[in-house]
Amino acid sequence: MTYDLWYWPTRPGRGDFVRYALEAGGIAYRDRAREADDGFGAIPAHLDAMTARHAFAVPLLETGRESIAQTPNILLFLVQEHGLGPKDAAGIRYGNQLQCDIADMVEEVHAVHHPITTSLYYEEQKDEAIRAARSFREDRIPKYCDHFERVATAHGGDWMLEGESWSTLDTSIAYLLDGLHFMFPKRMQALANDYPALHAVRERVFALENVAAYRQSARCKPFGTDGIFRNYPELDAA
Amino acid sequence: MTYDLWYWPTRPGRGDFVRYALEAGGIAYRDRAREADDGFGAIPAHLDAMTARHAFAVPLLETGRESIAQTPNILLFLVQEHGLGPKDAAGIRYGNQLQCDIADMVEEVHAVHHPITTSLYYEEQKDEAIRAARSFREDRIPKYCDHFERVATAHGGDWMLEGESWSTLDTSIAYLLDGLHFMFPKRMQALANDYPALHAVRERVFALENVAAYRQSARCKPFGTDGIFRNYPELDAA
Repeated sequence: MTYDLWYWPTRPGRGDFVRYALEAGGIAYRDRAREADDGFGAIPAHLDAMTARHAFAVPLLETGRESIAQTPNILLFLVQEHGLGPKDAAGIRYGNQLQCDIADMVEEVHAVHHPITTSLYYEEQKDEAIRAARSFREDRIPKYCDHFERVATAHGGDWMLEGESWSTLDTSIAYLLDGLHFMFPKRMQALANDYPALHAVRERVFALENVAAYRQSARCKPFGTDGIFRNYPELDAA
Repeated sequence: MTYDLWYWPTRPGRGDFVRYALEAGGIAYRDRAREADDGFGAIPAHLDAMTARHAFAVPLLETGRESIAQTPNILLFLVQEHGLGPKDAAGIRYGNQLQCDIADMVEEVHAVHHPITTSLYYEEQKDEAIRAARSFREDRIPKYCDHFERVATAHGGDWMLEGESWSTLDTSIAYLLDGLHFMFPKRMQALANDYPALHAVRERVFALENVAAYRQSARCKPFGTDGIFRNYPELDAA
């Protein structure tokens, strides 16, 4: 069974939370909007044509029997169906809780460069973005990273959650850190020593054979100045 | 077994997504921060003292065996453990997906009155909030409500999801609509006829005996000008 993944074609965005998990787990998928002639047009057309269980937005994973949207919900499915995480109900729930925390942080990352509305370009709300970025760098990054570091160090193991092997929470944290370092290189460099466990998780995830191969492939798209994680130098400071 | 709910004491906020589900399901709980002398101080102290499975924020539901945070994750637990929703895995997943959609919309609701940062008061970002509110009213409310109305009308039943009885998705939609009508009375009045199924769900939920009793009790706090759903007349227009 090859899954169908639907996500905006040019940037990693929220789609890479799903791609990292699929790639790390060796799960076959087609990247449907990237295969389409007009990927940006194909997504709204596909969502609008759904006849059951309508999805609000991408990422969307279609298994042949189910259409599953919302990043934490897709990753929960991969944990339950493919064993990419804890096996007990309480552990699965805690992993899902932390994926929801990551989703909240990603929503805030996007709001940094679009504080007024997603309907306007960055350049139309740049002054406000500069104010929003300062608060995000100084208050929100440490608040979230303190929490995730505390999770990572709670049990003495190599991974975010208890257990001998990686989970989708590790792939999500690795990718999240990658995005934050791209968007806020000065700030994240200044903070890196405060979060040794998180950065060790990132290195372990990036050293997984499947993940290393993914990151060297053309499937892994670079960050830029569109999508979720964007580097605008005026939004960064140590 | 009486659960412990932790949430900011004075306003319904995100806590009422959990309270409505607990109340509708007749599930006993204590509202711990409301019982405390200093509820606003008790929450960070409680979170900081957690020795395992640290939670980033409230709402937090403690069952005696587990501490569960993140609104969609708590509601997923109530569906799985108390049968407050679909019984099949795919139906449970779809309910969780839609709760994540609601959580995203609530995040955007909060960002309307705090577009720059949660670290400043509304009055310090009021001009930006007026711009953000216009886009939210004109673009985002219809986009989300179109989606939810489509879900509600997909199968011809009385409730958001297929099935004979209410689920936590119905209690969440009812409360969400209540909050939106409070925050944007003119706009929601102008749109109400576009969303008859959603408003019918709200009326059915509010007519449930346990919910009607809750709404008449002192446990159900009014909205105001703090918390998530706030009425500032300058942010509303038809």
